[in-house]
Amino acid sequence: MLSNVSKKVKVHNFSAGPGILPEEVLQEAAEACINFDNLNLSLLEISHRSKNYEKVMEEARQLVLDHFEVSADEYDVIYLGGGASLQFAMVPYNFLKNKAAYVNTGVWASKAIKEAKLLGNVDVVASSEDKKFGYIPKNFQVGNDYDYLHITSNNTIYGTQYKTFPKVNVPLVCDMSSDIFSRKIDAKQFSLIYAGAQKNMGPAGATMIMIRKDFLEKSKTGLLTMLDYKTHIKAGSMFNTPPVFPVYVVMLTLRWLKKMGGVSAIEKINEEKARLLYAEIDRNSMFEGTVIAKEDRSNMNVCFRLKNEALESEFDKLWKEANISGIRGHRDVGGYRASLYNALPIESVKVLVEVMQEFERKFA
Amino acid sequence: MLSNVSKKVKVHNFSAGPGILPEEVLQEAAEACINFDNLNLSLLEISHRSKNYEKVMEEARQLVLDHFEVSADEYDVIYLGGGASLQFAMVPYNFLKNKAAYVNTGVWASKAIKEAKLLGNVDVVASSEDKKFGYIPKNFQVGNDYDYLHITSNNTIYGTQYKTFPKVNVPLVCDMSSDIFSRKIDAKQFSLIYAGAQKNMGPAGATMIMIRKDFLEKSKTGLLTMLDYKTHIKAGSMFNTPPVFPVYVVMLTLRWLKKMGGVSAIEKINEEKARLLYAEIDRNSMFEGTVIAKEDRSNMNVCFRLKNEALESEFDKLWKEANISGIRGHRDVGGYRASLYNALPIESVKVLVEVMQEFERKFA
Repeated sequence: MLSNVSKKVKVHNFSAGPGILPEEVLQEAAEACINFDNLNLSLLEISHRSKNYEKVMEEARQLVLDHFEVSADEYDVIYLGGGASLQFAMVPYNFLKNKAAYVNTGVWASKAIKEAKLLGNVDVVASSEDKKFGYIPKNFQVGNDYDYLHITSNNTIYGTQYKTFPKVNVPLVCDMSSDIFSRKIDAKQFSLIYAGAQKNMGPAGATMIMIRKDFLEKSKTGLLTMLDYKTHIKAGSMFNTPPVFPVYVVMLTLRWLKKMGGVSAIEKINEEKARLLYAEIDRNSMFEGTVIAKEDRSNMNVCFRLKNEALESEFDKLWKEANISGIRGHRDVGGYRASLYNALPIESVKVLVEVMQEFERKFA
Repeated sequence: MLSNVSKKVKVHNFSAGPGILPEEVLQEAAEACINFDNLNLSLLEISHRSKNYEKVMEEARQLVLDHFEVSADEYDVIYLGGGASLQFAMVPYNFLKNKAAYVNTGVWASKAIKEAKLLGNVDVVASSEDKKFGYIPKNFQVGNDYDYLHITSNNTIYGTQYKTFPKVNVPLVCDMSSDIFSRKIDAKQFSLIYAGAQKNMGPAGATMIMIRKDFLEKSKTGLLTMLDYKTHIKAGSMFNTPPVFPVYVVMLTLRWLKKMGGVSAIEKINEEKARLLYAEIDRNSMFEGTVIAKEDRSNMNVCFRLKNEALESEFDKLWKEANISGIRGHRDVGGYRASLYNALPIESVKVLVEVMQEFERKFA
């Protein structure tokens, strides 16, 4: 029997990822570790070929199609291990024949570019590196002879986000790891979307890949089995033992999102959370946002810093006292970063805003 | 707060994998889903760069060295996603330069051979395919000019197991997925050992790779980042977000093994479990073992069948009534397979033996 485990204190979890998950999802995940589906067995010790688990995988795949409002006639969904970093290699390994176009908007985009260059010709058609990735490049041109254009929808480290996506005549591939299912988008403009689960979708250990069928047809042949998207699609994402538990928690999280009203409902809450926090950053005399182009500010990762960095330890003391966790900026950029993923309650943002106001009252 | 979840009925879990895990490990895993390390946060929603998780990864790596009785001066340990199937590709991708030798002892060995052939010259130096993989090839020769010899220590589907390993003058690489840490071996004879976690080590979603440092030095350069063992070894298995929860459960399982007295203690229990079951198969007039060479019978996966297959539904009824689960043979071979992994109590084997005896009394 499970002893009564609980969180003694409410922590406001602004972690950039792995990030906050809904309480009810964590509860169900814990229960499945003991007794899954009333089998009197743990989910961790049953065959992935069992009917009970096959249903989980099917639902986890279907929920992606549902939330993106696309059909199984047009797109396939699989879950793999290895994180988005493995996709940096798999995308060009499967699709780069002639040349590929990439936009460089930060650390993760740069890593994707580096991998693609190991596999073929790559043109960086736009970049915001000139201004420390503080904006999203716009109005760039992409010729029709590229195999695909690769973009990164949201940049966790620099706190920028595409508000509209480039209109191009080549297949559009998107690393959506850090803002997937946070807002309504037209998924049909993408030929391939991938996302490490550990922000809005679930825990670390599973990566979702959604591929348009007519794009998949263009993929290369003679590939290594496990690195060939076709292998996994043909096998319904069960070619070999999948990351069973991570995919289960993804399924629970996508179910929760549906119950919450889906992407359009969560988008409104996410916009309100971001509006509250950016308004305070802009109003408060002690802070400044780090993104140059305000219109490109991310609704997921809000990056800011103290105007007087000598006061950092004082600010740190205040937010720690308020049980706030995970707002230190990435080690490459410093400052602060509050990640407002789907499962973060608006109450946590209000607590952070109060702490910032208290800080101003005390130290201005 | 966690509601009181429990298993209502004791199920005897003979699943071939993902396989049975210790009750106390499942309990701790469930608790970590709610409140990990008294952080008032779930393990599923904290940064893998947190000190608390870095300690988990370090311990999970160290415990492998401890159980193999080797030192961190000689070997490195990492955990990746993708399962053993990804290692079928990564081993030749990193190490196959001139030619590699493989032994074919079943389905998994065949898959490893297929991947290696996509990457270079491969010689199958021994095979038991001639007799449906019912034995382990012995006394074969391997020239000194191979980059490595690849073997599969235990064959889950056919129920065979190397009792001693080939003595060769080239680096020995072993897929140990299904019998790792089940028995004392001299790990120093291996240059690389890999294992999907989901049998004796933990849940699905993490794969352990242990590599000798002097072998790693021979690996190729210019590789794709995520498929290069050096990437992960340099980063302490934290180059990118690892499969956080699966590695945690591996750590718990390896801790449990240590508490149980380690590999030499579990080996004695595993031998007794296998002895009990094989003795009954050989004694009972209704059954026969499927492995031709009795000396190669696996202590992990015991494969057998009814002499009169028309009675299958009768036997199935009996073992299901006894709350036995997971003893159907692999779909490629049929019959029955009882997997006796480390966490399976000897009591479960006794229950199966009793059911077999009852079956004989009723239907002989």
